[in-house]
Amino acid sequence: MQLADFKEVAANYKVIFFDAFGVLKNYEGLLPGIEHTFAWMRDNDKSFYVLTNDASRGPRELAESYYRQGFYGIPPDRIISSGMLAREYLDLKVHHGTVAYLGTENSAHYLETTGLKTLPISQVDLTDVADINALVMLDDEGFDWNTDLNKTVNLLRKRNIPVIVANTDETYPVSKNRIAIAIGAVAEMIETIVGKQFIRFGKPDAQLFMFAYERLENAAHVSKKDILMVGDTLFTDIIGGNKFGLDTALVLSGNTQPQDAEILIRSTGIIPTYICESVLIPE
Amino acid sequence: MQLADFKEVAANYKVIFFDAFGVLKNYEGLLPGIEHTFAWMRDNDKSFYVLTNDASRGPRELAESYYRQGFYGIPPDRIISSGMLAREYLDLKVHHGTVAYLGTENSAHYLETTGLKTLPISQVDLTDVADINALVMLDDEGFDWNTDLNKTVNLLRKRNIPVIVANTDETYPVSKNRIAIAIGAVAEMIETIVGKQFIRFGKPDAQLFMFAYERLENAAHVSKKDILMVGDTLFTDIIGGNKFGLDTALVLSGNTQPQDAEILIRSTGIIPTYICESVLIPE
Amino acid sequence: MQLADFKEVAANYKVIFFDAFGVLKNYEGLLPGIEHTFAWMRDNDKSFYVLTNDASRGPRELAESYYRQGFYGIPPDRIISSGMLAREYLDLKVHHGTVAYLGTENSAHYLETTGLKTLPISQVDLTDVADINALVMLDDEGFDWNTDLNKTVNLLRKRNIPVIVANTDETYPVSKNRIAIAIGAVAEMIETIVGKQFIRFGKPDAQLFMFAYERLENAAHVSKKDILMVGDTLFTDIIGGNKFGLDTALVLSGNTQPQDAEILIRSTGIIPTYICESVLIPE
Amino acid sequence: MQLADFKEVAANYKVIFFDAFGVLKNYEGLLPGIEHTFAWMRDNDKSFYVLTNDASRGPRELAESYYRQGFYGIPPDRIISSGMLAREYLDLKVHHGTVAYLGTENSAHYLETTGLKTLPISQVDLTDVADINALVMLDDEGFDWNTDLNKTVNLLRKRNIPVIVANTDETYPVSKNRIAIAIGAVAEMIETIVGKQFIRFGKPDAQLFMFAYERLENAAHVSKKDILMVGDTLFTDIIGGNKFGLDTALVLSGNTQPQDAEILIRSTGIIPTYICESVLIPE
Repeated sequence: MQLADFKEVAANYKVIFFDAFGVLKNYEGLLPGIEHTFAWMRDNDKSFYVLTNDASRGPRELAESYYRQGFYGIPPDRIISSGMLAREYLDLKVHHGTVAYLGTENSAHYLETTGLKTLPISQVDLTDVADINALVMLDDEGFDWNTDLNKTVNLLRKRNIPVIVANTDETYPVSKNRIAIAIGAVAEMIETIVGKQFIRFGKPDAQLFMFAYERLENAAHVSKKDILMVGDTLFTDIIGGNKFGLDTALVLSGNTQPQDAEILIRSTGIIPTYICESVLIPE
Repeated sequence: MQLADFKEVAANYKVIFFDAFGVLKNYEGLLPGIEHTFAWMRDNDKSFYVLTNDASRGPRELAESYYRQGFYGIPPDRIISSGMLAREYLDLKVHHGTVAYLGTENSAHYLETTGLKTLPISQVDLTDVADINALVMLDDEGFDWNTDLNKTVNLLRKRNIPVIVANTDETYPVSKNRIAIAIGAVAEMIETIVGKQFIRFGKPDAQLFMFAYERLENAAHVSKKDILMVGDTLFTDIIGGNKFGLDTALVLSGNTQPQDAEILIRSTGIIPTYICESVLIPE
Repeated sequence: MQLADFKEVAANYKVIFFDAFGVLKNYEGLLPGIEHTFAWMRDNDKSFYVLTNDASRGPRELAESYYRQGFYGIPPDRIISSGMLAREYLDLKVHHGTVAYLGTENSAHYLETTGLKTLPISQVDLTDVADINALVMLDDEGFDWNTDLNKTVNLLRKRNIPVIVANTDETYPVSKNRIAIAIGAVAEMIETIVGKQFIRFGKPDAQLFMFAYERLENAAHVSKKDILMVGDTLFTDIIGGNKFGLDTALVLSGNTQPQDAEILIRSTGIIPTYICESVLIPE
Repeated sequence: MQLADFKEVAANYKVIFFDAFGVLKNYEGLLPGIEHTFAWMRDNDKSFYVLTNDASRGPRELAESYYRQGFYGIPPDRIISSGMLAREYLDLKVHHGTVAYLGTENSAHYLETTGLKTLPISQVDLTDVADINALVMLDDEGFDWNTDLNKTVNLLRKRNIPVIVANTDETYPVSKNRIAIAIGAVAEMIETIVGKQFIRFGKPDAQLFMFAYERLENAAHVSKKDILMVGDTLFTDIIGGNKFGLDTALVLSGNTQPQDAEILIRSTGIIPTYICESVLIPE
């Protein structure tokens, strides 16, 4: 396994798509020194987007979480989240009524601006569901798993409505050695139980890449060959980027341990164009 | 779809295997009049066993729940539960240490008699797990789904131990129109997340049928052709009974609605030998 | 289930995306009278694209197959096939060497124009595979299933290369009552056996819809709300269109039988905006 | 990973269950020196059974294949094959008519003795199928994959009959570096396409173990604790033996490479009681 230098790799592309977790930040916060990478990109006219399977907050709140850590390099308009696709879906496909959701109030707040009423599953009255026209799964927090997942199953037996899964991840790290179950895994359990087809947004699905691709500045001068997708996870970032036709760089600062990378690439058949230690560029 | 009369069907067999839920009882308790069926069986020298995917209690407690409803026809030694298989597994394969479990204290009580120490997941200390040699999933009650399922995932990342799923059902009915998620569905979610192979006990698996078959009285005079398996669910009772080589009767008093039976049989290819309205035999 | 009139539905949209098989044609050829539908669209300034999970030929050959039946309404530049996505993938991601393929010579002919050498699996020499840099599954015809599928498995054990499935369908109809296994189902079997992740192009995946969306004429004046996706299959056309944010019309002239539509919609949770008998518009 | 000596391990058990392929023989024939292992067992009063996912021949033909290689240690009555379970199923559950099959004539020959007529799929006339009452998948040889698998799919759309898969393996080795697709993988593809539930016989399913367990001589003096299951595959031999309550020994002479064993055990959670290089016992 040959490691490439991130700066040398990035120099060949006009636009960089970054995954957030495991690439720019980890469970302790932003990677120390990440500001140098963004300074180098600015100095070298590299454009960028952050593509994240995160539906717990809107892009403004996501950017603010960087600001609070003293990093101002990523404005909201550079953040493309799976929550934005959920919101676009509701905007295009659900014209009235109430959207029930699993997640925190904060996660639903971002959807509300579509004009639909949102209602946490905990407040749904199963004897009065005629007005509920969609269900969105946003976050693993903000509800009682036992009570509210059972309620979700029974809601979906009463109402034949679209179910949108706005974060397809199965787990996320909460410390060096521990992980937590993400809403994507919960969604799969519910989908199996009710036997219906849910609508999933998030990497590796092409739609998140397309959402960023359509927003490129100077789009006329950028082709897919000019874009590099950088991520820490073969199953989302790398296969998604590959399929969309982008070159891809796997970084070893997150989900994929250095000692496992080679064996994982061989066993999954998901092949990144490059492997880099991290996206850090020394000052 | 031709309905058969249960009494006429049963008359042709020496032994009847009954599923419990949806056949002998439902969410409201025992089927009114079920005692006449058992009286008829006694009068006609029919032997029987109850085969149940229930690991929430031992056979004694299961029998007592019938006694409390005034029905004394089913003694403990006629009840074969998936919990008994879990207990046999621990007895044969786990020789010392602690067995962590998901379920109520009551469900674990039955396992304790194997000599192993049992510990609810809620009381597991993730920094001190060297003594935990197995995990058993018994019941969907008795633990906090969010905290304790996350803990379960992290336990299984630290310890490579066998995981026994003692109830393979995905859901169970709690009222006429509502269902609840059973531990079997939770187990599938955890199994996908940790990527390991769990050990499942319960219909349709052959081992539950075998457990009953081995306990037959007058075994020498009973062949598989003399046994009828009666259940309300194609995917567990009927396919399991068929595969074990038994004749099978689907009853319409539980999981399978009369209007859906024919279409379900055609679409799944799971074909019962008979279809009966219920096991009730008029006095 | 309320049936809508296709003409009245189509009148509300600027652009119509059509599935081909089951919508415009069936196993006997083009739907008699389909030319009136396209005449009406031309007279009413409706734009259209045909989106097809067909990688057996290029768009030119697909259009010619309509010409041969005397229908000149669909020029090649209106046909978007999953084969085009496979070709784009190879163009962007595979820069040299040989592409092995499963399919007819005809299906590979279209890929060849990318500059890569193509080689049918039957001609692959398993002792000399260093030059093979991708495998594409195009069509269920053109190879010996036994010999060549075994060869495919062994090729993928020797070479860790991307595998592109250019038609995700599991089956296709060959007469009123018979179907044939399509390459999509074969691909799933091979993927399970080798344990690798293949790259799939075709509905319901967003990328095919995007490919058409990016080619829209007068794109500046067309939003997703102006586009109707018409298909005969819930699992590809309708859920794909829904997820992409389009209104959708299920037609009953193909895969979905009129008597099954309602029960299928309820059991799958895939809900079309409209249901129409067919796309035929009387002269 | 600590390797145990097979002779020392075996000394602790009264009965040994052996997998055949990868344990007693490989693609080149019987393991050289295997006769010494059986001589040691005879001298030490060890009983044994061979449990094999092989439905291509009956036990007599399987034993004869050993005789032809000059090894007379395994008589037919010590061989338990998944084909025997298929035969028992037909005997118990299919009382008349024709059984269609995928496999060689030889594989069907063993079923014929049940009194049912057997018919290779190639000779099935799809316009005259009313008499076909079951389908058995026996072997990957003996039929044209393209023509006859398509015929199989169409037969199962016309007739709602039980489908028995008598070999659950996905692949088998044909030389040092090459494998072939086994009927088990083909069965999964067909099952997905027709959407029905097939009946599978073979390890890891309990029924094959039970079949051997029931045939034990001196059964009264043998408990599950006295039996060792020996196999080369975690997913069939080892997890099946574990679940049935037996101690298990993984051998590294077949499917599981020495360098992969530890990582596979850790990643699958399938834990053998012992790991041995092979079952060979020096003279």
